Amino acid sequence: MENESLLMLPGPVPIPERVRMVMMRQAINHRGSEFGSLYAECVRILRPLFGTTADLFILSGSGTAAMEAAVANFGKDRKIASLVNGKFGERLFKISQRYGNAFDIGSTWGTPLNLELLESHLEEGAELVTLVHNETSAGIKNPAEEVGKLARKHDALLIMDGITSIGGDVVEADRWGVDIAFVGSQKCLAAPAGLSAISVSKRAWDRLSEKRPYYLDLAAYRKSAAGTPMETPYTPAVTLFLALHQALLIVEKEGISARIERHRRLSRAVREAAQAWGLSLYPTLDDHHAYSNTVTAISYPSGIKDSEMRGIVKKMGIEIAGGQDSLKGKIFRIGSMGAVNAPEILATLAVVEHALRKLGYPVRGNGVEAACEVLV
Amino acid sequence: MENESLLMLPGPVPIPERVRMVMMRQAINHRGSEFGSLYAECVRILRPLFGTTADLFILSGSGTAAMEAAVANFGKDRKIASLVNGKFGERLFKISQRYGNAFDIGSTWGTPLNLELLESHLEEGAELVTLVHNETSAGIKNPAEEVGKLARKHDALLIMDGITSIGGDVVEADRWGVDIAFVGSQKCLAAPAGLSAISVSKRAWDRLSEKRPYYLDLAAYRKSAAGTPMETPYTPAVTLFLALHQALLIVEKEGISARIERHRRLSRAVREAAQAWGLSLYPTLDDHHAYSNTVTAISYPSGIKDSEMRGIVKKMGIEIAGGQDSLKGKIFRIGSMGAVNAPEILATLAVVEHALRKLGYPVRGNGVEAACEVLV
Repeated sequence: MENESLLMLPGPVPIPERVRMVMMRQAINHRGSEFGSLYAECVRILRPLFGTTADLFILSGSGTAAMEAAVANFGKDRKIASLVNGKFGERLFKISQRYGNAFDIGSTWGTPLNLELLESHLEEGAELVTLVHNETSAGIKNPAEEVGKLARKHDALLIMDGITSIGGDVVEADRWGVDIAFVGSQKCLAAPAGLSAISVSKRAWDRLSEKRPYYLDLAAYRKSAAGTPMETPYTPAVTLFLALHQALLIVEKEGISARIERHRRLSRAVREAAQAWGLSLYPTLDDHHAYSNTVTAISYPSGIKDSEMRGIVKKMGIEIAGGQDSLKGKIFRIGSMGAVNAPEILATLAVVEHALRKLGYPVRGNGVEAACEVLV
Repeated sequence: MENESLLMLPGPVPIPERVRMVMMRQAINHRGSEFGSLYAECVRILRPLFGTTADLFILSGSGTAAMEAAVANFGKDRKIASLVNGKFGERLFKISQRYGNAFDIGSTWGTPLNLELLESHLEEGAELVTLVHNETSAGIKNPAEEVGKLARKHDALLIMDGITSIGGDVVEADRWGVDIAFVGSQKCLAAPAGLSAISVSKRAWDRLSEKRPYYLDLAAYRKSAAGTPMETPYTPAVTLFLALHQALLIVEKEGISARIERHRRLSRAVREAAQAWGLSLYPTLDDHHAYSNTVTAISYPSGIKDSEMRGIVKKMGIEIAGGQDSLKGKIFRIGSMGAVNAPEILATLAVVEHALRKLGYPVRGNGVEAACEVLV
């Protein structure tokens, strides 16, 4: 793939050839039966990835559009408790502030959520909880099931951002009590960016806000999806639907469990490499199950500059991510999302190890070998 | 193009091969310099199509997203006068109702706008006017320059939907006094659906609403566009940007005037054919300059059923449009947008003429020949 960097980011991720090929097709009419079947097929394959049998729609907008759709359709003028331990939790809080009476239940980025404070807000009448399942900005996976139990106990709706977990990690929206969940196309599904999918529980429909936005009005999506052929209320990004469909056929062929297991193994390989090098993961967690399975954040040792390190890696044709906002310069992040495979992880680790050495960090052990042990 | 219908619709339209080919590329990082240059290049080519030197942004959402961005960012809690003579004027009115204090300045679909009533609303303090330049639902082009003069006279902002005119007809946003204009990717630009572009005048920025939506927050777009590299605030539909860029290079190569002239000639050919057949255009207008140059609406003669007629046309591999809402069954519409060429128009007219005959309509004259006279 000359001229193209290997994107080992927490999205966008490399897109399989078959998915890209289909976008060469000529435009099709989005009010016809072919598009309707395509949409229905996408929904059929997506539902089990969400762990839901609820309504599910595809929006022509990226993950942030789905975040806003969730909050705007169910949170207007309501009391919203926003769990925040990273950039995307913060974004959901900011969106919540634009629509409702939002409370920031914040912890330092990458540290566990403050569930005691959540409970007190629920006791005081919070009607909606927002949660990011997999917080890529901080490499942490949040305990969605636990949050779901608390929300149900207090009869609040739960909005869960599954943008970077759905399709790469276990998500059981219905069992966990998640009312609204959403995913982005360019993360674990390995499709091009620009679409998001959102599920809505029966409980949530019963509490639909009366005043809603227009382009992201989920009641309009419900109405159009119920027609024959299945449609979207406004012109969808048809080409991206074609691509998402191919990406989902790949997911279906691999099988959900196998796909999740692959994500687990790849991210564990990255963690083992970091530890072999003598570096600390970010955050430092006791319980290994709370590390993200789709991205790994590693703390820079003192003296290593982010731009230099990622510059060397980029020169070799691989893009990894730095930290965002308050974590800028403090961490680097390696994605293991979507269609990423063992050779790509190994090449990435090899060049990172090389860069660390070149920049004067006394690499303790052979990280690439440690990763091989996990991957073989 | 086996299996693919020729889309002679008022969007989506056939996409040139070069535009589709580029979508086969691997994902690129939307926070890098390549994407930044791509975005900047698109803006550079789009500005003259809008007739503006103002700020211009590309949204990852279809035309309706741009409609909402316009109203939501500048119309919150304001008095809005919505000019309505078709489906899309109606849509802008509905969106305006969700954000401001909106008045429906309605005329029957396809009939001239009620500018007297507009003026009285402006005198009573309307702060914002919404207008659809080219109303595809009714085949009519509205007098944007005249509306712009009225809006300026009363110091109101003017939002103009140029979704189906920009790139195919003359648009002079700055000269006409249009403050916010927008276009959809899948219309006259002949790119895939899923993107829209929106321009914002200095005057409009001075009146930016304080409470704005999130995904469509134009202040966030402005901030990200001003950075180096040029960025979008949230993940864009990168693949569609690649495609739009190619489509715009084609527009640039053809030249704006030549492109508009082609659209004019193609739509005139359709009108001449309709008249040769003895059919009435919809609407019936005295002034030929008010007919849309990008879609032609033709009234069904009595006894011809829409589904039968379009069914025959579709069987031949061509999709034309019926009427929407109140015009369903009463008109059919032939698009002449984007990259459409003379052979495609002639083939469409040939099969429509055949269908009319087959369904028992006594075709008066040779419409295909009449079209050839215009096209040669």
